[in-house]
Amino acid sequence: MGAPVSAETAVVRLNEIIGARATIARGVLDDHGRSEAYHASRPPDVVAFPETTQQVAEIVKLCGELGMPVVPFGAGTSLEGNAASVAGGVCIDFARMNRVLRVHDRDLDVVVQPGITRKQLNAHLRDTGLFFPIDPGADASIGGMTSTRASGTMAVRYGTMKDNVLALEVVLPDGRVIRTSQRARKSSAGYDLTRLFVGSEGTLGVITEITLKLHPWPQAISSAVCSFGRLDQAIDAAIEVIQSGIPVARMELLDEVMMRGINGYSKLGYREAPTLFFEFHGTEASVAEQAELAEAIAAEHEGQGFQWARAAEERTKLWHARDNTLYAGLSLKPGAKAMITDVCVPISRLTECLTETRRDIDANGLIAPVVGHVGDGNFHLLILIDQDNPDEVARAKALHARLVARAIAMEGTCTGEHGIGTGKIGFLQDELGDAVDIMRGIKASIDPKGIMNPGKIFLPNAPVLA
Amino acid sequence: MGAPVSAETAVVRLNEIIGARATIARGVLDDHGRSEAYHASRPPDVVAFPETTQQVAEIVKLCGELGMPVVPFGAGTSLEGNAASVAGGVCIDFARMNRVLRVHDRDLDVVVQPGITRKQLNAHLRDTGLFFPIDPGADASIGGMTSTRASGTMAVRYGTMKDNVLALEVVLPDGRVIRTSQRARKSSAGYDLTRLFVGSEGTLGVITEITLKLHPWPQAISSAVCSFGRLDQAIDAAIEVIQSGIPVARMELLDEVMMRGINGYSKLGYREAPTLFFEFHGTEASVAEQAELAEAIAAEHEGQGFQWARAAEERTKLWHARDNTLYAGLSLKPGAKAMITDVCVPISRLTECLTETRRDIDANGLIAPVVGHVGDGNFHLLILIDQDNPDEVARAKALHARLVARAIAMEGTCTGEHGIGTGKIGFLQDELGDAVDIMRGIKASIDPKGIMNPGKIFLPNAPVLA
Repeated sequence: MGAPVSAETAVVRLNEIIGARATIARGVLDDHGRSEAYHASRPPDVVAFPETTQQVAEIVKLCGELGMPVVPFGAGTSLEGNAASVAGGVCIDFARMNRVLRVHDRDLDVVVQPGITRKQLNAHLRDTGLFFPIDPGADASIGGMTSTRASGTMAVRYGTMKDNVLALEVVLPDGRVIRTSQRARKSSAGYDLTRLFVGSEGTLGVITEITLKLHPWPQAISSAVCSFGRLDQAIDAAIEVIQSGIPVARMELLDEVMMRGINGYSKLGYREAPTLFFEFHGTEASVAEQAELAEAIAAEHEGQGFQWARAAEERTKLWHARDNTLYAGLSLKPGAKAMITDVCVPISRLTECLTETRRDIDANGLIAPVVGHVGDGNFHLLILIDQDNPDEVARAKALHARLVARAIAMEGTCTGEHGIGTGKIGFLQDELGDAVDIMRGIKASIDPKGIMNPGKIFLPNAPVLA
Repeated sequence: MGAPVSAETAVVRLNEIIGARATIARGVLDDHGRSEAYHASRPPDVVAFPETTQQVAEIVKLCGELGMPVVPFGAGTSLEGNAASVAGGVCIDFARMNRVLRVHDRDLDVVVQPGITRKQLNAHLRDTGLFFPIDPGADASIGGMTSTRASGTMAVRYGTMKDNVLALEVVLPDGRVIRTSQRARKSSAGYDLTRLFVGSEGTLGVITEITLKLHPWPQAISSAVCSFGRLDQAIDAAIEVIQSGIPVARMELLDEVMMRGINGYSKLGYREAPTLFFEFHGTEASVAEQAELAEAIAAEHEGQGFQWARAAEERTKLWHARDNTLYAGLSLKPGAKAMITDVCVPISRLTECLTETRRDIDANGLIAPVVGHVGDGNFHLLILIDQDNPDEVARAKALHARLVARAIAMEGTCTGEHGIGTGKIGFLQDELGDAVDIMRGIKASIDPKGIMNPGKIFLPNAPVLA
């Protein structure tokens, strides 16, 4: 690899490629080291803002030559240090590659650049009658969502990023540009490289174009909220909703601690008990039928005060409360930071997993509200910590480790939608054992120099690039 | 690799592992060389019938030691020579590994061994209220369907095998056993090894256990049939059905040639014109609404004689006609064999692709009915050939090559659901170019000796094992 190259030298070479759009300005570097996560800041040595796939390919080729890491960067909303520059190097920021390239309304797909955010995309699509449903909460970039295999509140109906990416254009670590698939709706042509790159967190190449499935805007939308005396009743109702074939568009579980936070933060008067938030999509007749069926199921499980919000305004209020769970949670412990984590278990184990977790939280004197995509068995714990209190931080980390071990023991996964990043490397090994060796082998075959986002998903075979 | 080992030696060693369930009987070998495809028979040297994952692991280890190819075999219904033993070796037949291991009705999933067929699985599930929807026509094994990333008539609603496999147990080429994923509904934990093995056609390892998503049986089912004066009208109607958000469960396109075959073969009196067969799943109210909306859309596109079949008996008649398209097609040219192929294009290009293809067929004096999963843009051509007529076979092969080239030029794929096998190796390279190198690298990293189903998907880097 030769002697390490200084950031000053690298930036000169980069600017030959992209014309003064690479920088080593301290503030910019720091902005690209931070994320919304609780992990420590790890800034890159240089940030580059390319405008074309060709420029990205040349940047990657240069980095291979110089032995510098390449770290793709979208909106910076990831939660497990996925875009942290743990070994320095060149951060490729897609702020200038954020265009919608082609809308195919008859095919229900769209081709975008990775820097566009999901809200920007949906704003662009407004007049087409189509939308992109994946909603992880944050206004993440499509490139970042693809890289972490994101999902969110509508996955129960519309799937995750793995289900909604049709094809990718990728710059390989050697600078070649490939397409992982054609634009056809399905294919059996060889290994599923699209799905291999979705969720690979930038460790195999740089995604420069994404073809996404779109969905028709439903004719009608209705929402509902319903609380339960006990957690198992709420979860049993959710399971029955799915078993009965109701094509629920969202079904969110908020525990009593989270409801207390929401009431306090949003000045609302919900019952502070395990609660389900529903959303139904369909025709006018179909959403009415779905809501009635769900109400009947909730009633069988002693659900209380089933409120059905059909008007857009009421729905907005309800989902606004749901979308503010981070701030609502934080309001429960003024001055605290949230250690946000997510696990996912088979839904039949969810009651047991959440009950044991609540007991564990309380026994350790911590505050940690829960919000979950209950149809998928996926939930988030917001462990509220005073970062200046090392004992509390240690208790929170130990709680987190026990939560993940519990989920894995229940045939669940250490992360349903946030990815491994740097934060869950050890847990991945616990979860999948020898299968991680296969991942390492794939990484080595595609990125033999190990320049692509090093130090993520698994520890490298060799030390991270200096 | 040493000197090649005789089949006689191999069978002795294999029987030490599986106790007299390996054979070199000629009839058995021949049975495992044939398939439903038009490709030449390629029998293995030995057929083994293991009963446990452990036995499979020991067989694979032995084959690695002896330098013998390993070819997994399910129901033998594949269409592109996917399970042909092109380099001889040991065929692992899963006839004795065909059990349902665990049904998780609350989680809507099931764990099965690879040898079970889809009809056997659905028979087993009959009393659970759940079903497995992927229907490729043939009563294929679940292992085979997983390996070729199969789909079929219900993919428009329920997805393909890639969407319905939750996790796999795989015996790696070195004999280690891994799980590709936990049983949680979704995960962002590392590379998506599940999707890598789905569609890898046995070239990366031997699948020994499959966890599948299940779906609730719909409360009500209705079907409909409608013919159109012109192909573009039928396809435009199909596109509008999808754009309008009707959750159609099946939507099949049969061209006028296929309808003629169906009428002749099943003694029916359908109009011999481009025709759509629909199926709707949902509640009673919802299927009625779906059928009405579809009827209105069909009428806008001058669809004629929209017939709505609600009774089970009428539906069965309709889908029985659809399911017999192979025999119905063959009846158009007595004594002929069908060269069956499938391509998939973006639906907006389907009219153009089919119109050009029909012109090409007619100009070359061939008979080739079309049936397609129109919601996915996927269609099959049954090119009817007299195998004793070399000129006709040559014209059929040339037509096939032009069809694939046309589909690829329209951003489509050389195979929507049959896989590459031996039959489409050249076309895969045409379609994906350098991306095939990445597949080769993955293959080499997981199966460095190249023992797993050699000669499929891509030509090997080195000559196929002797």
